[in-house]
Formats: sequence, C-alpha cells, structure tokens
Amino acid sequence: MRMYDIIEKKRDGKKLSNEEIRFFVDGYTNDNIPDYQVSALMMAVFFQDMTEEERAELTMAMVESGDLVDLSAISGIKVDKHSTGGVGDTTTLILAPLVASAGVPVAKMSGRGLGHTGGTIDKLEAVPGFHVEISIEAFINLVNRNKVAVIGQTGNLTPADKKLYSLRDVTATVNSIPLIASSIMSKKIASGADAIVLDVKTGAGAFMKELDDARELAQAMVSIGNRVGRNTMAVISDMSQPLGKAVGNALEIKEAIETLQGHGPEDLTELCIELGSQMVVLANKADNLDEARKQLTDNLNSGKAIEQFKVFLEAQGGDAHVADNPDLLPQSSYTFDLPAKESGTVSEIEAEGIGTAAMMLGAGRKEKDSGIDLSVGIVLNKKIGDPVSKGESLLKIHANTDTIDDVTEKLYASIVISNRTVEKPPLIYENVSK
Amino acid sequence: MRMYDIIEKKRDGKKLSNEEIRFFVDGYTNDNIPDYQVSALMMAVFFQDMTEEERAELTMAMVESGDLVDLSAISGIKVDKHSTGGVGDTTTLILAPLVASAGVPVAKMSGRGLGHTGGTIDKLEAVPGFHVEISIEAFINLVNRNKVAVIGQTGNLTPADKKLYSLRDVTATVNSIPLIASSIMSKKIASGADAIVLDVKTGAGAFMKELDDARELAQAMVSIGNRVGRNTMAVISDMSQPLGKAVGNALEIKEAIETLQGHGPEDLTELCIELGSQMVVLANKADNLDEARKQLTDNLNSGKAIEQFKVFLEAQGGDAHVADNPDLLPQSSYTFDLPAKESGTVSEIEAEGIGTAAMMLGAGRKEKDSGIDLSVGIVLNKKIGDPVSKGESLLKIHANTDTIDDVTEKLYASIVISNRTVEKPPLIYENVSK
Repeated sequence: MRMYDIIEKKRDGKKLSNEEIRFFVDGYTNDNIPDYQVSALMMAVFFQDMTEEERAELTMAMVESGDLVDLSAISGIKVDKHSTGGVGDTTTLILAPLVASAGVPVAKMSGRGLGHTGGTIDKLEAVPGFHVEISIEAFINLVNRNKVAVIGQTGNLTPADKKLYSLRDVTATVNSIPLIASSIMSKKIASGADAIVLDVKTGAGAFMKELDDARELAQAMVSIGNRVGRNTMAVISDMSQPLGKAVGNALEIKEAIETLQGHGPEDLTELCIELGSQMVVLANKADNLDEARKQLTDNLNSGKAIEQFKVFLEAQGGDAHVADNPDLLPQSSYTFDLPAKESGTVSEIEAEGIGTAAMMLGAGRKEKDSGIDLSVGIVLNKKIGDPVSKGESLLKIHANTDTIDDVTEKLYASIVISNRTVEKPPLIYENVSK
Repeated sequence: MRMYDIIEKKRDGKKLSNEEIRFFVDGYTNDNIPDYQVSALMMAVFFQDMTEEERAELTMAMVESGDLVDLSAISGIKVDKHSTGGVGDTTTLILAPLVASAGVPVAKMSGRGLGHTGGTIDKLEAVPGFHVEISIEAFINLVNRNKVAVIGQTGNLTPADKKLYSLRDVTATVNSIPLIASSIMSKKIASGADAIVLDVKTGAGAFMKELDDARELAQAMVSIGNRVGRNTMAVISDMSQPLGKAVGNALEIKEAIETLQGHGPEDLTELCIELGSQMVVLANKADNLDEARKQLTDNLNSGKAIEQFKVFLEAQGGDAHVADNPDLLPQSSYTFDLPAKESGTVSEIEAEGIGTAAMMLGAGRKEKDSGIDLSVGIVLNKKIGDPVSKGESLLKIHANTDTIDDVTEKLYASIVISNRTVEKPPLIYENVSK
C-alpha cells in the first residue's frame, strides 16, 4: 500500500477502504508518512469529502492510535457532553453536577486550552483548594461514590488527532466537516464515553455561522457515534450572542452556582435542562425526555443540584462554601459599568467581540503557556431584544487595571442598539438524533 | 504575508496576487516555507485551477528563482521546441539541423533523464566522439557559426520548479494543467528561448490521453508564452502509436539520418516539417508557413539538411561519417524478428508497451544513475492500418541477449491485429496559436 495511491484515490473522489484509512493514520502517527503527503490528502478530503463509513473508520483509527480510557469500573452508562465552542458557555460546569444529581455517572476529562476564557479546569480552579491532579483510580472511585468527578487529560489520547489537527491548523484544512467531526468524536470516544450528547453552536459567535453548516456537522457526528456503537444525539443551539451573562473564569463559576440554585439566566438554564435531559435519557435514568426534564427542574429548585455541586467540589479539595458565599472566589480590583450611549433595543451582541474583550482583560490564554487571571471578565446586563435607556449599564467589566479604554472600545463596537423592535433569537434550533 | 492565507485563498477559489505567488515560490525555494504547506496549496490548485495571469506569474517566478541563460550574443530569434513526451519521438534530433539549415539559430539545451530511451544527449552520444561538455561561450560561438549546437543543462535553472515538481510527484498533484504548463514553460524560458513551438502529444501513448485535455494544456502553455513576451504556438499531434519506426538510442539516430536524407518514415517526416516550418516562421526566416514548408522540404531533398547535421556533429567532436555509414553507430549483438501470429490489419500499437519493451532491452534508465545501452531497441515494420500476413515481421528487436521471452511477450501484448478495416490515425489534430 502506498500513500501516493491513497491521496490520488481521494483526489479523484473515490471512497477509501478501511485498510487505507488505517494505513495513513497509523503511518502518520508513527512518523512513517511525511507531513507533506498528509496535508495533500487533507486538502483532497476538504474538496472530496468522506462517506459516513470513512468518517467512522477515521474516528476509530484515531481513537486506537493511542490510549483508550477504561471507565468500565464505573457502573452505569457514562454519558459525555461536548459543546462546539462559543463565548460564555458555562454549560459543562452546570451539567456535570446537574445530571449527576439525577443519577447519571459523570466522569469528566477536561482541558485548559486557548480561548476567550480558560478551560473547564481553569474555571474550577477558581474555587479555592480545588484540584484535578488525582489518579485515574481515585477518579473512578469518586465517580462511583459521588456520581461526578473531573480529571485533567491523562494518558496519550488520540495522538493521531493531535498530529493531524496541528497539520490542518497550518494548511487551511481545519474547516472540513468530516475532519472536524472525526476529530471531536475521536476525543470523546477515547475518553471512555458510552453515549454522547453534542451541543452544536450556530450563529455569529460560533465556528459554524450558518444553521445549515451546524446541522451538517451535527449529523456527521451523530452518524459517527451511532456507527461505532456510541448512542449519540445533538442539540443545535444559538450562539448569535454569548450564552448566559458571564464571560470569565470565577464569574462563570458564580453564574453556574446561581443556575444550580435555580435562579440562573433563563437561556443558560433552559439549555442545561435540554442537554441534561437528553443525557439522562441516554443514561437510562429516565424513561422519556419529559420525565428527565421534570426531574432536573425539580433538582434545581429543591437544592439537590447545588448540593451535588458542593459534594463534587469538596471531594476534590474545593471550598464548598463558595456556593453560599461567592465572595470567596477570586475578585477583581475594579469593576466598571458600560453605559449605553443611546436608548433603544439591543439588536446585536457580537459574541466574538465580547470574548476578545474578556481575553484583553486577561481571562484567557493567547498562548499555550500564558497565565490567566481567574477574577476578570464581563457580566452582561442586557441581551438581544432587551430595551435599554441611554446611560443604563449594558454590562459590568471586572478588571485588575483601571486603564481599560481599549476594552470599552472593543465592547462598544460589539454591541448594537437599534430603534426598531428586535426579537430575541431562538435558543434551540433543532435536535439531531440520526 | 502568511502562507496560510495563500492556501486558504486558493482553497476558496480566489485569484492569488502576483505578490502572493512570488511569496510562496521564493519562500519555498529558500526553504522558508515547509513542504506540507506547499503540498496543500498544490492540491488546492488542482481543484481550483489558476487564471491565465496567475499561471504566467507562477512561470516567471519559477524562471527567476534561478539562473536565466543569456543567449543575447546569438544573433537572430532563438526558437525552441518542446514535445510533451511519447515513444520513439526523434523530432528533436531531426528538427535541430533541419531548421538550422533554413537559417534559424538553434541553441539547444538538453538532458538525459529517465524514460523508455535516453534523452537527446544520450542519443547523440551514440555518434562516436560526440560530446556536449562545452563551455557556454563555445556553445554560443558554435550557434553563431553553424546555426546549431547542443549543450547539457547548465547553471541552476528553475530550482523552484525542480523542488515543486519533486513534491508534486509524491503528493498526486502532477496532473494539473496550470502546474504542468507553468513547469514546462519555465524551463523553456529559463533556457533562453525567444519563441517556442510546442508539440503536444495526445492518444494512448501520451500523458494527455484525450484530445480535449491536450488542447487545454496547449492553450495554457501558449497563453503563458505570449503573456510573458515569448511568441508561442502549439501543434497537437498523435501519439496513439509510436512516432516513426525506431525506439532506441542509436536506432533513432539512424532514423534521424534517414529522415534528414529525405527518406525517413512518412509520419515523422511530416511532423518535423510541420513543427519546423512553424519554427522558421517564428524566427522570421520565412514570410509564411507555405514558404517555410517548401524550404524545409527542399533542404531534405537537396542534401542541405543532412549536410547541416554533419557540420553539427563534427563541430562537437562527432564522427560525421555515420551519416553515410550507419554501421559506425553502436550495434547490438542480436536481432530478432517478431512474426505476426495471424493475418489481418494492425489496429493497435500500444506506444507505452513498445517503450517498456525497449526499456527492458536496456534502452532507457529506470533510475537516475543507471547506465543505458545505446545499441538496443525496436524498429517497427508495421504501423496502425498496415495489412500483415501471418508470419510476416511486425518489428525487429535489437538486443544484447538472446533470452528475450519477456520482451516478445510484452510486444505481442502491445500489438493488436484485427480482421476489420482499420484507418490510419490522423498525424496532426490541430494547431493552437492563442
């Protein structure tokens, strides 16, 4: 078998065999196939696509290129959730304890990563004492005991995906549905998920700006999951503006606490109940979505959800008092309101711009080894469709400097106030389950 | 400027600016841009094509990546010819002295290369004493004095093309019209041609099997040439069977001699007159094609053409007596006839198969440093459309071994005898001049 023939075959729009897919994934992982042949193949895939069968094979080849986390010692169906990224997306922090409170085992492997804010682990570390440096055995025991635990990425997971992604990132081949879908799914599967709920974002602040593209990606991932024996469904949700109100690390923890206490932002709460009830059903902890939804809503209102969060935090060394006293979280030295320059209705809140402003404040990493400031960020007071009067606060800036002219400029540029009527965007567009 | 953006732009079907083309060609030549980014770009070009302006700029960027041969000391318009390759293509050996005999200066830079037979230089070296190791000054003086000389490739010509071609060769991106056209044209222009006649082959034995593809390639090259100030035209000629009768090094020299003496194979003679008269007109040595054609035909019949060949051979140390006594050329130890197994009409002579058989005899190089046997090869007695009786010789094999079963097997597999009427294929399909 020759890599040349594989490139040529895909270039000419033909379907690669399972053996051919394994050949190039294994060969690339083992440094037997050079970058320049693989980048040519990735570009050919960009133009010629892959069949559902090819995508599933590519996913499993990447999964099997490295370690597979064995969660079989955890009783029950391990359901994982993945969001395709956006701004102010606090769903993971809420969903983990929320579905655990309904009896679903949540064995969450998370990262730090680059972005507007830190990753889930960074955010959780805003809770004094919380840490993820635990052994895989301790992690499994915690999930069995408390139904929920979080660990940093461990082992050598999907090295093929890491290598392919790095290459795609510099050869303009990231933006390809089969490659995005197989990359995401390989990571979830290698992390030990039995079933997967996907939260595919669409809108101006999402990777997939158009609903059609988001749907295509959702279908691609759902197809892969179900083909390789992982019950998978996707919710397509809105990211035309930031989700919830908080963008920042400690600020999102605070928002997660409020939501778990039953008084979080409406959109964030609703999306968590939607995603959570899908997870509960996939985990066989409810007979249908209505039942699951009722259970989760009850747990938010009864205090069971926030109780689960506290147990989770304490089990990993965190100070659970933050749930009752959010002032224990890192606080910024300054806060500033951003007053509206005119009256009207908020018609646009460009998520990308808000995220960039948070990053300028220090909430996210620009480079892999940069530090991040857990205390800073932005809390929206208005969302799209809200009326606003001139001078009223659009949002609050949490900063550790009082020279924030560039940040306020960026924020003003990201928010549009209109004198026409503006409807709130829908929160959830559709579900994809096959 | 970033290579990433250039890849993305071409991937999305946009036209690259001149600056972008220079950036990637120069960057790649200087090892500042890695292979994997360039191979991704080449694959994007494969799918998205290039405009005529981009192709011309790519050509000149490759020309200017290395040395440019300065032929300005040669008086007159230097017209070069390029054939896109085939089997038994002896045109260069004939055309050089033939158009020189009409006053066109022929400063030919040739190579050895891989293939069914050696390159032009290998073939000429079948003439005892002939050599191409001369200085560029001596070369120019010879052309000024005798109108024709041949030199081996000198200087660092089109390093960008060499590097790009090597990369394309292993990433399935050779077969792209803009890349083929710019590669060929860059080499001709860097070799100092003022005007260029292209012989684009089509048919089963050619790189471009289909006439449409050959036409597209011809148009692409003609457009590049004329855009960069080199008068260029193309003749699309047949390669459904080998051209002429001889395939081999010394055997092709013998055939060239016969043709220059006015009694060569009909198809080879006609194509040389066609290509030659185009060259004579581009060199302003005749007012029109009819006049040029008459002049060349006269020179073949009057002995002027073969005289020019002798002068050329002697000037570079060759024994010109070969023209009168071809036995002075290297002779193989054995010759074998290949008898027809049935009576009928020859309906197919697969050029590729005949070429491969010649290579099996030792006429061509399989690898860069292999030696070649100048004496061996094949001489066809029949061409497509010729009647043949059972037992009659289809061709003669010139070998230096008497165990040639694999060669005869290959040859029988390459020739089809039909019991239906078969027409001779046309020799020339069309000319492309803009």
